[in-house]
Amino acid sequence: MHREPFSIGLDLGGTNARAAAIGAHGRVLCSKKEVLLDRSPEACVEALTRCTNDVLLQMHGTPERWPTVGLALAGQLDRNTGRVLVAPNLGWRDVDFGDLLSERLSRPVTLANDLAAAAWGEAQVGAARGHANAVLVFVGSGIGSGLVLADRLYEGSGGVSGEFGHIKVRPGGRLCGCGERGCLEAYAGGHNLGARAAEAMREGRASSLEFPEGLVPTASMIERAARDGDGLSQELLEEAAALVGNATANLMTVLNPSVLILGGGVLSGSPTLRLRVEENVRAQASRAALRTLAIVDAALGDDAGVVGAAFLAAPPRSLP
Amino acid sequence: MHREPFSIGLDLGGTNARAAAIGAHGRVLCSKKEVLLDRSPEACVEALTRCTNDVLLQMHGTPERWPTVGLALAGQLDRNTGRVLVAPNLGWRDVDFGDLLSERLSRPVTLANDLAAAAWGEAQVGAARGHANAVLVFVGSGIGSGLVLADRLYEGSGGVSGEFGHIKVRPGGRLCGCGERGCLEAYAGGHNLGARAAEAMREGRASSLEFPEGLVPTASMIERAARDGDGLSQELLEEAAALVGNATANLMTVLNPSVLILGGGVLSGSPTLRLRVEENVRAQASRAALRTLAIVDAALGDDAGVVGAAFLAAPPRSLP
Repeated sequence: MHREPFSIGLDLGGTNARAAAIGAHGRVLCSKKEVLLDRSPEACVEALTRCTNDVLLQMHGTPERWPTVGLALAGQLDRNTGRVLVAPNLGWRDVDFGDLLSERLSRPVTLANDLAAAAWGEAQVGAARGHANAVLVFVGSGIGSGLVLADRLYEGSGGVSGEFGHIKVRPGGRLCGCGERGCLEAYAGGHNLGARAAEAMREGRASSLEFPEGLVPTASMIERAARDGDGLSQELLEEAAALVGNATANLMTVLNPSVLILGGGVLSGSPTLRLRVEENVRAQASRAALRTLAIVDAALGDDAGVVGAAFLAAPPRSLP
Repeated sequence: MHREPFSIGLDLGGTNARAAAIGAHGRVLCSKKEVLLDRSPEACVEALTRCTNDVLLQMHGTPERWPTVGLALAGQLDRNTGRVLVAPNLGWRDVDFGDLLSERLSRPVTLANDLAAAAWGEAQVGAARGHANAVLVFVGSGIGSGLVLADRLYEGSGGVSGEFGHIKVRPGGRLCGCGERGCLEAYAGGHNLGARAAEAMREGRASSLEFPEGLVPTASMIERAARDGDGLSQELLEEAAALVGNATANLMTVLNPSVLILGGGVLSGSPTLRLRVEENVRAQASRAALRTLAIVDAALGDDAGVVGAAFLAAPPRSLP
């Protein structure tokens, strides 16, 4: 039986529900994950509850005695009310998920956007520890950011700050999953990067990229093809690096943080893209902002959401 | 003799030194301005001291009994040390101006960048009063911004946040006064807007713009010519509105403030530009960020710097 103080962090994405017990220094003491077969709010509440109970059993075997809980969720939400405004990966709009989950768990639940939670986790115990002002830029299937400013999680007036993937880089351009046009994510997010490669090939562009019918190539596939001299893959990575690098540089110029944390599956899957993004940030951010800026990789990986959510709910403490 | 509590706000730009006594609700009780004939730090200290003593005499006639003082300065600075890192309009680099002025006035002096001070002034007693998260975007001869986030002035890790004029909108493009290329200010700042009109005309572009030899047209002149059907002026305003509007929209998407304050001589001198900037912000900021966003004009005008600086030094109080 564990005696170490801990909090419970939950993570709800489009694919998995997860619960973890988080120790004092952000260590994941134990964890339970379930693949989501049904994405309805009710089914997600049940999946998260099963994961939570499993973790509590692993931790001390008495589900009645248990600590605070925080949830990281891939979507826009109002932290004050616990309402999820929109969660595209889950297909939700205006769901009072905080209330639903809190009622089922008979405990208050602290909600946060997944990248806000990740930024908070990195600031507490990860790559941004000790930095008062930290910006996390995440390039995965989607693109987003999390902001820790003046030692606090910054979420904006409507709770929707950090929507870095939906800044407009080509006004009126390519249609984004969010329904708007010309978003950064529509060009450089992992899914769109692959979709653009597939589209170009359907339109007759030569490429050595190989991928299963009906799917799109991943960032790692594009990276390998680019290294093998594939022109289309090289162009796509260079353009993505130009767009992400310029937008990130401009954010550094305006916010002047002391650390930029780069994370997400596309950046970790494509070292070329990761390198070129950093080069573009260093070339384009103002010299004044660069003087105090460290550029680092995310340290918490897939644990960032559960760790950040647990710390947002409350620093880990001893059970009563 | 005034009995109302007040603070002293100072403003040092490239042209003028100014001191003002600021009352409890941000009212300018009295003010004194001097044209700067000599921009050396020593001469500026003397000019600010003369203005301050004049204001103190107007206020109560006993310069020994006087309140706190704040200084708004057009430049990048380190608020902790009072050192001015670079002030292009004054031709300074690495000047310990806080120490110099504080010694001469025998009082601690609080320094702030002029647009940071302006944002703070607008947040305390102007157009952003009551807003926890406010972004001021200023388009004058130069371009800049000031950020009030979570009810505090946000200045970044190196004190140089808000350098909105120096985000890169055309990487590698037109040379900016800051020495870098492709900055927003190099395309849409008042001086550059005029310079670009003059350059196009020297290169043979037809235009009805008229302006004195050796000078460049002002934003008001370009506005008038555009209204009279001048193609060059219309194009320049439309491009400036596209660039400023896009960059501002993206800042709204990432920071999700509840108010955007638009100010500066170029926007007030060109109603067309002001209108088109707002239209572009409304078209390009994320719908989620727009839901809670008010777009308003700056309320304090030329007083924003002295008012904000006074409030940063300390809220106005009674004399001992």
